[in-house]
Amino acid sequence: MQKLQKGLKIINELSATTYWPESVIPMQPKTEEYPEFWPEGFSSGVVAAGIKYDRQDMILLSTDAPSSTAAVFTSNLCCAAPVILSRTHLQHSSSSIRAIVCNSGNANAATGDKGLQDASAMAEAVAAQLAIRPQEVLVASTGVIGQLLPMDKVLNGIKHLVANLKRDSGIETAQAIMTTDTFPKFFTLELMLSGGRVRLSGIAKGSGMICPNMATMLAFLATDAAIEPSLLHEALESANRNSFNAITVDGDTSTNDMAVILASGKGPEIMADSTDFRLFYQALEALMIFLAKLIVIDGEGATKLVEITVKGAADNRDAELAARTIAQSSLVKTAIHGEDANWGRIIAAAGRSGANFNQNDLELFFDDLPLLKPGFIVDFSEEKAAEIMAKDSYTVTLRLGDGPGCSTVWTCDLSKEYVEINGSYRS
Amino acid sequence: MQKLQKGLKIINELSATTYWPESVIPMQPKTEEYPEFWPEGFSSGVVAAGIKYDRQDMILLSTDAPSSTAAVFTSNLCCAAPVILSRTHLQHSSSSIRAIVCNSGNANAATGDKGLQDASAMAEAVAAQLAIRPQEVLVASTGVIGQLLPMDKVLNGIKHLVANLKRDSGIETAQAIMTTDTFPKFFTLELMLSGGRVRLSGIAKGSGMICPNMATMLAFLATDAAIEPSLLHEALESANRNSFNAITVDGDTSTNDMAVILASGKGPEIMADSTDFRLFYQALEALMIFLAKLIVIDGEGATKLVEITVKGAADNRDAELAARTIAQSSLVKTAIHGEDANWGRIIAAAGRSGANFNQNDLELFFDDLPLLKPGFIVDFSEEKAAEIMAKDSYTVTLRLGDGPGCSTVWTCDLSKEYVEINGSYRS
Repeated sequence: MQKLQKGLKIINELSATTYWPESVIPMQPKTEEYPEFWPEGFSSGVVAAGIKYDRQDMILLSTDAPSSTAAVFTSNLCCAAPVILSRTHLQHSSSSIRAIVCNSGNANAATGDKGLQDASAMAEAVAAQLAIRPQEVLVASTGVIGQLLPMDKVLNGIKHLVANLKRDSGIETAQAIMTTDTFPKFFTLELMLSGGRVRLSGIAKGSGMICPNMATMLAFLATDAAIEPSLLHEALESANRNSFNAITVDGDTSTNDMAVILASGKGPEIMADSTDFRLFYQALEALMIFLAKLIVIDGEGATKLVEITVKGAADNRDAELAARTIAQSSLVKTAIHGEDANWGRIIAAAGRSGANFNQNDLELFFDDLPLLKPGFIVDFSEEKAAEIMAKDSYTVTLRLGDGPGCSTVWTCDLSKEYVEINGSYRS
Repeated sequence: MQKLQKGLKIINELSATTYWPESVIPMQPKTEEYPEFWPEGFSSGVVAAGIKYDRQDMILLSTDAPSSTAAVFTSNLCCAAPVILSRTHLQHSSSSIRAIVCNSGNANAATGDKGLQDASAMAEAVAAQLAIRPQEVLVASTGVIGQLLPMDKVLNGIKHLVANLKRDSGIETAQAIMTTDTFPKFFTLELMLSGGRVRLSGIAKGSGMICPNMATMLAFLATDAAIEPSLLHEALESANRNSFNAITVDGDTSTNDMAVILASGKGPEIMADSTDFRLFYQALEALMIFLAKLIVIDGEGATKLVEITVKGAADNRDAELAARTIAQSSLVKTAIHGEDANWGRIIAAAGRSGANFNQNDLELFFDDLPLLKPGFIVDFSEEKAAEIMAKDSYTVTLRLGDGPGCSTVWTCDLSKEYVEINGSYRS
């Protein structure tokens, strides 16, 4: 409960310091009326199935009627059984998805044919309970790799999930999908479109195996807008590049990553190439970046959120190469942890990233403080740099030259706690 | 002194367990006559110049006469001034290099034009002392990035280096180029060729910013063989791929990496395509792999040396991608540290590496113990796995399929000490 309060405080603080698009109203949890409500057309239920943890560990997110759906999945070749199954179900039913069932504590990854049968059995059990087709159910799992699910517990849990469905369950649902996360991640944005008000909610979990190309994370997003699957997919894929694919905790892409958005169609319709679509996209991207930042803040052992921006690159690809390499460098991350303005490690990471530049053009800033000017002119106040690095969150900006390429990546520090957490449990 | 003894013990133990090529005799330090002697034609001197440490911090490795030389340098775009200078000097003088001067405690990297002038001044000062041309001198530096060298101290040190030149100074020279290394790395192999006996010695330093593509390391190799620069370069480049470029401590490629080999020509001549060249190459590669392993063993915070081999890949490139990704995964490295047979992290790393395979074909071994059989059949003794992981050194072998591709990479564990070392000092 203390953790929940701490988490809500972090979420409210981050929201207060976020530069939200003009058209959206952030719905702070617990500070407005019914803030943990899902958008219209959605409900969710949780249950303690006893898979691994002594707490709620299974969720069902359900829609009143077939919903338009889009998803992005991990690029890891060793993808988990639920990823394989959900990808297939989505291909058949992107206009008619009715539910997502998810468990924590066991990833159902590296489990071979039996794992696939188990994932199918989960979809079938949910379908039977809701009187829908199994292909209309997406399945997700997160937790330990390489162990079979305790299917008796899972199937028993599913029986209770439907009875527990309610609309104001955003936070407890976010809590039930946590593994080593320390607080639940739920947030809602509201925006006005020409056809009326739209809500957009999301839950996410992260913590370990977090890195570009979808990380270990799960994110389930829900909106009451009416929008075609193909348009929804276009928006999700693009926003994903700038949010969940732009964060790193440890550079390890997990076997189970999945981000799904369901649109119930209860609200106004959004057409391609419209102002409404542009506004909706802005809100979706803002919500996903917000959830992505929460994942980094709550990264294993993390104490700081640092935004790394690379500008002036020859193109966006070069900028991204440099930004990701800096963000994933163990030496940079330990220097962030030690609050040491060790700028040499940052430019050394850029230098090995594969991005092309002339080292004499480099310019580096921490927040607004210039540390390095072209020609390796170093003349900054160590005191001011130390002040910035003592903060929980700051920006690092590296300019490579005069090109148009730009990229932003979010990272955290590398602490002894990361080693402690990952050297001492199997997950 | 205790550290030196510990280091010699590590070196002797590793040598005893190394599968040396049949033709070579390893010369254990302090256990044979004059083991720390350089090959004929070489001498080295050290001096405490007071650059950063309160100990010997500058070395001069010198040859009696112009020597055939080859080198490989860091691929980091932010390469240090001595790298830029030495690359140029080598282009002009690969048949007539006479000396290498090197300092520890300051990398002379990210120092702009002044840094280049300083590196040139070092070569000129050495050349003046030895009455040779500046282009016949290679310069190397290792240590903090982004600070100018204290040139008064450096030039004063160079004055004393020549007077200190001697032939039995291998270990103290290896000691003077250390930064966060905990023991000096010097080793000599002897081999019989058709024209007589040849010796091959090398010193190396590593510790942080160690990763494929030359790492932070410096390696200076010396042989009394007579061999053309182009042939020497061919041997060095190939051996480097399988040794220094196949190790990783933290995935950070440094700005100062350099491996140089000098051949004094005092011994027998080695011709291209000869049996002698094949034997010489085997010995060179074995020595470089040996030194590379010493660097990993002495990696920052490292307590274990793990050999990662990927077999059965479609080609060597795929095998290397998978092996390097596994070797650099923070999750794999913390599991190695925690002695947890968390095989899911190993296959997850392979799955995101870019190597192509079918996850149902995977087979995994720790030493000779099979952990995973095709089809995700997991049936191993946790106790036996724990026994293997408790050792200081073991092998991990992952078979991807039936292809011919194979690659071996050496890595260490990720410990809290790594975070401690790198979060608390600027280097």
